[in-house]
Amino acid sequence: MRAIDLNCDLGESFGNYKCGMDEEIIPCITSANVACGFHASDPLVMQNTVRIAKENQVHVGAHPGYQDLVGFGRRNMSLPAAEITAIVEYQIGALGAFCTANGISLQHVKPHGALYNMAVKDSAIAEAICEGIAAVDTHLILLGPAKSRLIAAAEKYGLPVAREVFADRAYEEDGSLVPRSRPGAMITDEDLAIARVIQMIEKGTVTAITGKEIEVEADSVCIHGDSPAALAFAQKIHAALLAEGITIAPMNEVISQAIH
Amino acid sequence: MRAIDLNCDLGESFGNYKCGMDEEIIPCITSANVACGFHASDPLVMQNTVRIAKENQVHVGAHPGYQDLVGFGRRNMSLPAAEITAIVEYQIGALGAFCTANGISLQHVKPHGALYNMAVKDSAIAEAICEGIAAVDTHLILLGPAKSRLIAAAEKYGLPVAREVFADRAYEEDGSLVPRSRPGAMITDEDLAIARVIQMIEKGTVTAITGKEIEVEADSVCIHGDSPAALAFAQKIHAALLAEGITIAPMNEVISQAIH
Amino acid sequence: MRAIDLNCDLGESFGNYKCGMDEEIIPCITSANVACGFHASDPLVMQNTVRIAKENQVHVGAHPGYQDLVGFGRRNMSLPAAEITAIVEYQIGALGAFCTANGISLQHVKPHGALYNMAVKDSAIAEAICEGIAAVDTHLILLGPAKSRLIAAAEKYGLPVAREVFADRAYEEDGSLVPRSRPGAMITDEDLAIARVIQMIEKGTVTAITGKEIEVEADSVCIHGDSPAALAFAQKIHAALLAEGITIAPMNEVISQAIH
Amino acid sequence: MRAIDLNCDLGESFGNYKCGMDEEIIPCITSANVACGFHASDPLVMQNTVRIAKENQVHVGAHPGYQDLVGFGRRNMSLPAAEITAIVEYQIGALGAFCTANGISLQHVKPHGALYNMAVKDSAIAEAICEGIAAVDTHLILLGPAKSRLIAAAEKYGLPVAREVFADRAYEEDGSLVPRSRPGAMITDEDLAIARVIQMIEKGTVTAITGKEIEVEADSVCIHGDSPAALAFAQKIHAALLAEGITIAPMNEVISQAIH
Repeated sequence: MRAIDLNCDLGESFGNYKCGMDEEIIPCITSANVACGFHASDPLVMQNTVRIAKENQVHVGAHPGYQDLVGFGRRNMSLPAAEITAIVEYQIGALGAFCTANGISLQHVKPHGALYNMAVKDSAIAEAICEGIAAVDTHLILLGPAKSRLIAAAEKYGLPVAREVFADRAYEEDGSLVPRSRPGAMITDEDLAIARVIQMIEKGTVTAITGKEIEVEADSVCIHGDSPAALAFAQKIHAALLAEGITIAPMNEVISQAIH
Repeated sequence: MRAIDLNCDLGESFGNYKCGMDEEIIPCITSANVACGFHASDPLVMQNTVRIAKENQVHVGAHPGYQDLVGFGRRNMSLPAAEITAIVEYQIGALGAFCTANGISLQHVKPHGALYNMAVKDSAIAEAICEGIAAVDTHLILLGPAKSRLIAAAEKYGLPVAREVFADRAYEEDGSLVPRSRPGAMITDEDLAIARVIQMIEKGTVTAITGKEIEVEADSVCIHGDSPAALAFAQKIHAALLAEGITIAPMNEVISQAIH
Repeated sequence: MRAIDLNCDLGESFGNYKCGMDEEIIPCITSANVACGFHASDPLVMQNTVRIAKENQVHVGAHPGYQDLVGFGRRNMSLPAAEITAIVEYQIGALGAFCTANGISLQHVKPHGALYNMAVKDSAIAEAICEGIAAVDTHLILLGPAKSRLIAAAEKYGLPVAREVFADRAYEEDGSLVPRSRPGAMITDEDLAIARVIQMIEKGTVTAITGKEIEVEADSVCIHGDSPAALAFAQKIHAALLAEGITIAPMNEVISQAIH
Repeated sequence: MRAIDLNCDLGESFGNYKCGMDEEIIPCITSANVACGFHASDPLVMQNTVRIAKENQVHVGAHPGYQDLVGFGRRNMSLPAAEITAIVEYQIGALGAFCTANGISLQHVKPHGALYNMAVKDSAIAEAICEGIAAVDTHLILLGPAKSRLIAAAEKYGLPVAREVFADRAYEEDGSLVPRSRPGAMITDEDLAIARVIQMIEKGTVTAITGKEIEVEADSVCIHGDSPAALAFAQKIHAALLAEGITIAPMNEVISQAIH
């Protein structure tokens, strides 16, 4: 029987600005990607988010992004590789301090937004990120999409990896996501989305947009908690996975079990 | 024979903006207070500064400040105690990542600018800072002026402390600095300044502005490297201490020796 | 018959972060205090807010604050007077560009948060603000509390002034607000709050917390739209003023009418 | 006899960080491109820069850039067109306030760094910029390289234009700059550089890197003042132009003369 991690972005509030439904989504997940103050969050939000994660036995990962608060880290920026490495180290260290202060270990790193999207397709960016992670702690798990440049870079730097899948997205035959701009890119039928995730976990396959069944490795499912609808779907998929007898566990346990 | 540490603020450049004479001052010092990106510095500058410090066998400390880049952290700000604790943890963690990446340990923490000045006189701020330091690592040395609220707070939180003295400043009878606005606050005669420092190190005393000889503990002397004149004085005092037979060593060695 | 302006802070969203119920509150008000990107807002939010204000015939004022996004401009900061003047000029100019682009004139300036609170009691800060306003446009109305240092400074710099009152706050005998920390500082009975405002407008008096009836000048009532409860109260007071036969009009019309 | 404007970026200091040799370069130039707080500068620096420009009879232009202080606005960023328009309006307005406060008019707008470089080749970005300029003031001159998308966009929006040339850069046959990465891109012989500029002004031609003589329109020469070497060259070219009998005048006079 396979196990699966459920990961979600948390701690995206900033100062007076509240964002996300962290308290409501956290019982549904096992790993939290916590913003580190560059694209979202601030030190107090990080402190509180790590504390809440610990209280809910949710494992904590760093969610580093570009230093672009007004753009929420979603806008492509051209940074030298050395600077990408440095901003990743900085953000991991900053979040790590709150983990230490709360007596827990940092589990993983998932790049955010434009940094994630650019790294998926660009080896130089992916390697700059992984160089930063490895420089701080080679036990940190890189969380990224299967078969991406991110996963390849992590393996090059000797980092453990967790592969994430998306319930609401269609896949190309090569395992990459169909761009949102293309028809059929989004899986809007919730029951179909859940059935696809269960198939990915249990059989390691998914039906690509072409109709062909392809192999896909799933260590973690990416969950959203930024709207009531997203929260409701998260609760639904969480219940469906349990009903199917699938173990929901933090990614370090999932990938450890997968190895043995 | 007493030993003394020489500390200096380093790594205060930011992006395209260069500031300080880090390369020139670093051979004169044994401990560097490295800015952490809130009042000055950025991830690349921090990365480079830690590397240069390591190459020069200079020990590294965090120099956390208020998040006020345009004011260089020198403007008083009213933050809740919990937020002060959080910004200190954040900045220590961020700098700590670069220390880890360079294979060295973080030695100490010296608050910067307005945060330092406010904490010297305000126990609530001093304790908020020390709570943040202790939450991350109780082995970190708090660097502050003798007899200040900062030192008292550090001792309350079980942190080791290093007491710094100033070559160019006059002292009140209670061991506090004479405010810069008062006549006689600055010691402008370089030879007198050096003689005072040597007396502080060897005899543990200094002549207060009133003429009375008072006790003062000196573990570290604060050095500046932000101008050619400051650099020249740093080189002069460094040579004078060596000529006097005083050992110049990082503060963790100085306070360890003082204890035994 | 007196007229009254209803002013409200608008345009406090920032990037991905939504804040306030601007669309809902705007039909209730006649003057909008629009954040200028220092304590809240960004250029796109400012552009949209000015456009919405124009569509609703709501007059636009600048709402400059300290450059402290994470603290929402609510934390006291120590800035030199010349810098306060400069940040006020900068923010007025920035918002003014959007007014020009939308074919309307900037009507007034109301300092925000800590800048407002500090200026109310500190003549040097109040004058630094008014110097900045007057340097850009001496026709801009300074919106502040009656009998405050802000109003005195505006008059010194030859600026027109509008005096604002608060429905939900108790007053001292000298016309200043009872600090929130004191018992009785908040008027929680909505009907009483409305009756007090009507009395301030029609009779120019209010009952101080001591029980004594004092004189108070009211050109504008400060309204909040940052929660459903605040919105509901705004709608209630708006209806009550109309029912009383009081004219609700932008502050430039109110003070012009008051003068003649 | 043709006249020419000499333009230079000024006011790029920020808080404690000094940058550029503004006081030394300003006697050599007739138009200043003043940073507006997004990629460099702050309100006090802007205030002082406008004042110094006025004292030296140097005309003032806005130099808007991406909001990327750590990258000095030199890194490509992907912004929606509407946001580019808004950040241009914001920055023009902010600088305009200091012009008003100093009793002068804003003369021109020259986009900075990555915003300039991207707009030169991308019509959508160029038009977003010019839409912002035109929305604030259709009399503002757009300063950009001849035959670029920037100039075309300015003409589309009815803005007056000034074409700038570069003394130290080689040109392609189509009038665009040879990329710095290509051999021969930089003109390092100062006398040759000056001779080329004089030819551009007097004959309206320049020898392209291929050897072919091409037509080029020159209303302004871009000058640098960020190093002693740049300053010395600026003084040299200034003297050479005067010796040649060329009138050095602000760009609004140059293009007005060219039209009539």
